[in-house]
Amino acid sequence: MDSARRWNGWGHPDTDYPLPAEALLFLHQKLGAATPLPEVGLDAVVETVPPSRVEAHPLLDTGAEPRIRHARGQSLPDWLAMKSGLYGCFPDAVAFPENRDQLVELLTLAREKRYCLIPYGGGTSVAGHINPRQQPMPVITVDMGRMNRLIAIDKESQIATFGAGVAGPALEAQLRGQGYTLGHYPQSFELSTLGGWVASRSSGQQSLHYGRIEQLFAGGKLETFDGCLEIAPIPASAAGIDLRELVMGSEGRIGILSEVDLRISPLPEKEAFYVAFLPSWDQGVAVVRRAAQQRIGLSMLRLSNPLETYTQLRLAGHASAIALLERYLRLRGNRVGTGGAEGATLLTFGITGSRSQHGATLRQLKKLIRQGRGAYVGTLLGKRWQHGRFRFPYLRESLWQQGYMVDTLETCTPWSNVTPLMHAIETSLREELADEQEEVHVFSHLSHVYPQGSSIYTTYLFRAAQTPAATLERWQRLKQKASRVVVEQGGTISHQHGVGKDHAPYLRTEKGEYGVQRMAQICGLFDGQQQLNPGTLLND
Amino acid sequence: MDSARRWNGWGHPDTDYPLPAEALLFLHQKLGAATPLPEVGLDAVVETVPPSRVEAHPLLDTGAEPRIRHARGQSLPDWLAMKSGLYGCFPDAVAFPENRDQLVELLTLAREKRYCLIPYGGGTSVAGHINPRQQPMPVITVDMGRMNRLIAIDKESQIATFGAGVAGPALEAQLRGQGYTLGHYPQSFELSTLGGWVASRSSGQQSLHYGRIEQLFAGGKLETFDGCLEIAPIPASAAGIDLRELVMGSEGRIGILSEVDLRISPLPEKEAFYVAFLPSWDQGVAVVRRAAQQRIGLSMLRLSNPLETYTQLRLAGHASAIALLERYLRLRGNRVGTGGAEGATLLTFGITGSRSQHGATLRQLKKLIRQGRGAYVGTLLGKRWQHGRFRFPYLRESLWQQGYMVDTLETCTPWSNVTPLMHAIETSLREELADEQEEVHVFSHLSHVYPQGSSIYTTYLFRAAQTPAATLERWQRLKQKASRVVVEQGGTISHQHGVGKDHAPYLRTEKGEYGVQRMAQICGLFDGQQQLNPGTLLND
Repeated sequence: MDSARRWNGWGHPDTDYPLPAEALLFLHQKLGAATPLPEVGLDAVVETVPPSRVEAHPLLDTGAEPRIRHARGQSLPDWLAMKSGLYGCFPDAVAFPENRDQLVELLTLAREKRYCLIPYGGGTSVAGHINPRQQPMPVITVDMGRMNRLIAIDKESQIATFGAGVAGPALEAQLRGQGYTLGHYPQSFELSTLGGWVASRSSGQQSLHYGRIEQLFAGGKLETFDGCLEIAPIPASAAGIDLRELVMGSEGRIGILSEVDLRISPLPEKEAFYVAFLPSWDQGVAVVRRAAQQRIGLSMLRLSNPLETYTQLRLAGHASAIALLERYLRLRGNRVGTGGAEGATLLTFGITGSRSQHGATLRQLKKLIRQGRGAYVGTLLGKRWQHGRFRFPYLRESLWQQGYMVDTLETCTPWSNVTPLMHAIETSLREELADEQEEVHVFSHLSHVYPQGSSIYTTYLFRAAQTPAATLERWQRLKQKASRVVVEQGGTISHQHGVGKDHAPYLRTEKGEYGVQRMAQICGLFDGQQQLNPGTLLND
Repeated sequence: MDSARRWNGWGHPDTDYPLPAEALLFLHQKLGAATPLPEVGLDAVVETVPPSRVEAHPLLDTGAEPRIRHARGQSLPDWLAMKSGLYGCFPDAVAFPENRDQLVELLTLAREKRYCLIPYGGGTSVAGHINPRQQPMPVITVDMGRMNRLIAIDKESQIATFGAGVAGPALEAQLRGQGYTLGHYPQSFELSTLGGWVASRSSGQQSLHYGRIEQLFAGGKLETFDGCLEIAPIPASAAGIDLRELVMGSEGRIGILSEVDLRISPLPEKEAFYVAFLPSWDQGVAVVRRAAQQRIGLSMLRLSNPLETYTQLRLAGHASAIALLERYLRLRGNRVGTGGAEGATLLTFGITGSRSQHGATLRQLKKLIRQGRGAYVGTLLGKRWQHGRFRFPYLRESLWQQGYMVDTLETCTPWSNVTPLMHAIETSLREELADEQEEVHVFSHLSHVYPQGSSIYTTYLFRAAQTPAATLERWQRLKQKASRVVVEQGGTISHQHGVGKDHAPYLRTEKGEYGVQRMAQICGLFDGQQQLNPGTLLND
């Protein structure tokens, strides 16, 4: 248990990103003045924790605080629950296994005593993966954080083996000491763990270079009720079903990863991030699509739509920098939008690799930017992006303190559907609270591009209602509406956040009744009594 | 049914690659003079076909010739059976569905009448995938060859949909007409089909650029006993189990693919193949490993070990060219080996892409070759490789006619195990027939490289025994010995040929008893009565 973490929000208590005054002004203009929701203290929550239903056992901690700290993830409903103290449900105990033997012991215990087990990595899910639910079977949350060491490294083959509970920074630090990197940087990097990345099919900000976790996960050990499913890290095979694929995306439903073999890379010679502006959304999309389809060797590519571009510049609060930028862009025939659908789009991109590859890649992308009548503005804003790449979750806290709720939705779809789906999602959110005369501020970016299509990442802000319950209701309306649009109009219900409990109802539209049925049956092969993370992934 | 095909061997009857005299001399030296095995005519085999056990049905052809033509694949045991006329087993009927409706009708018929179905693409398996076996249930082979059309193409998203029965050349021709390519070129390209590639996790010669079929297969329709499992071609998703992964490698055990969505590419601006020589195996391995780990943008990379290098040059029969090459290499400090483990290694590589990427990539690889004290010899031999890239199966025919058997084995393993495993495989084969005083000529190459490891592709030649049965016995000893070495020493039982019936006994060592049990259970979810290609993949 990491008591240095905020117990009811994101990250480290000593890290804060307050909103600049100008950002607040902007939100007032867009959404109206807001009133923060009340927050309760940890002591008050402790009072609400019911007695544990598990028998005492040396591996189980039934204290109130660890149970509180493992009851919720980082979704907006989780924040509403944590800050209002209305948790609803807690695990009956938390276990902190230190090795495979203890993990196996926990599985044996669960089998014998009929307990549920919820594997817990960094608790960063924004889709309800690790939340226990009300049910007759007692629930043990298995915090994997102590199984966090580099176990082996084969430098010739660039394969490293880690305990599955290692969090991003500790993983990278251990690899860097040997001259290597994994290169997996989801926005939750500071807290999320290797096991969680694998179990929920995570994607990092530099997946264009390093690959998604699907490409990085080479093999490992899954501890299950029937023993250990051991998968050798063979680089490629045509021998039947790829067992790694049963583990990835299983979200704790079939077992708990104890060790993970990873495909690692030497530390890059050079890595830098750059920014350009394109005069319109369509021209921006054309550039990123071409860059993906021409397989230009970038490591990151992010295209903010005009409203996100405008909002980011306003929220950053550097009025003088914006003015300067405006002037520069106007000289080049572009302009920053004023809050509508028109205006410049911000393109942030990264290059990672050898020095010689670096130069060639930069030239190729600059050529595309010129063809799109865009303006390359160098590394200054790119450095700012890099510096703030894991900051967004902290900004949520600052917004919350001002009474503004922020949430994100993400999907992926083929190129021919990217812009229509983005507009459909944004429109569905923007109009949903009209009957309450509430504005919703919605903007999007593309952040993971493929030759065949792109992810769409949509952020929406709205005001807290008068109570946590009424605010939750607003969120539910928004989330349901947009999620239905996503799956009904050809997107996946998640490109990178996973399914959890919040997305499970939409999986049937995406995968078909048949596909979901098979997924459930496959989980059933490993866990016939639904003791492993029930309710997650399958809405069962 | 393609009656323009050889009924008891590979490919088109009008295509022949006779052995040069010098090649024969070489084989005499290495293995001794050989006597060809007798061959029977098609008419004689027709006499041996038993009555069909299926009821007459408009979709079923119970004629002897189609049943003969669909009874065997292209493994060495298949050749021994076909050429000797000792088939052992034939399907009871062959169906040639022309559309999804007819395919569904066949599934319904199979369910009602309790027939087995074997999906059949190009019949190019070298591991017994499509061979019917003796069993009480009648067997229908489903030849997918008539479902071979381009159904849809989304150029913006670079996704094309084909009937699953389309063979390599027809697929490429239809894409080329639109300016696109799939770029999947297994050695069986001329005959093998899209559905077969997906079901057996095929890998093409240019997978380094285009990816394995795993990366090219975007979605599609799997017709099953319980209806159609439809998988949308979403570029990436974190939504639970990736259903594509249930289809890939399923080898006909869960359903029959009717349509396949593919990730396609525009035709490359430039494609060329080059050759270099490295002074030793270890230096050659170092170059290809670095090229893979530095992600140099090659499309093909193949490193022949010294004995393969020497054998290829000798079998090609161009004595004067070899002499010239010898002289050139000696000037550069290298030399062609003389049949032992020492000597130059042949590196063949391809570059596919834009003109500007081409030049940069060539420079990068040449630098590595120089660092490895190698000699770059340009495009001449590269063009020869390209010209003969699908010729090897025809050479088998010429060798057969001289009484020499040839077979191949392949695996994949991490870099740190590549050279030890290659030596172990080669040694196991080379020594296996010593008690019969028979030589086995064994050589290998690496042809699919990854940052974490490489495939190993081993070719072995030996003399036919006096009878087909005694020759089969020699093969069985060799195959069993080497296969056991592969899985016991950390390789996969197949990097690209699949499991079929021949590799099924070794799957347990590779995937574990547990892994194979789950694979069997998953197949059982789709096919509870074992009516779909029984015996393949699972040794059941």
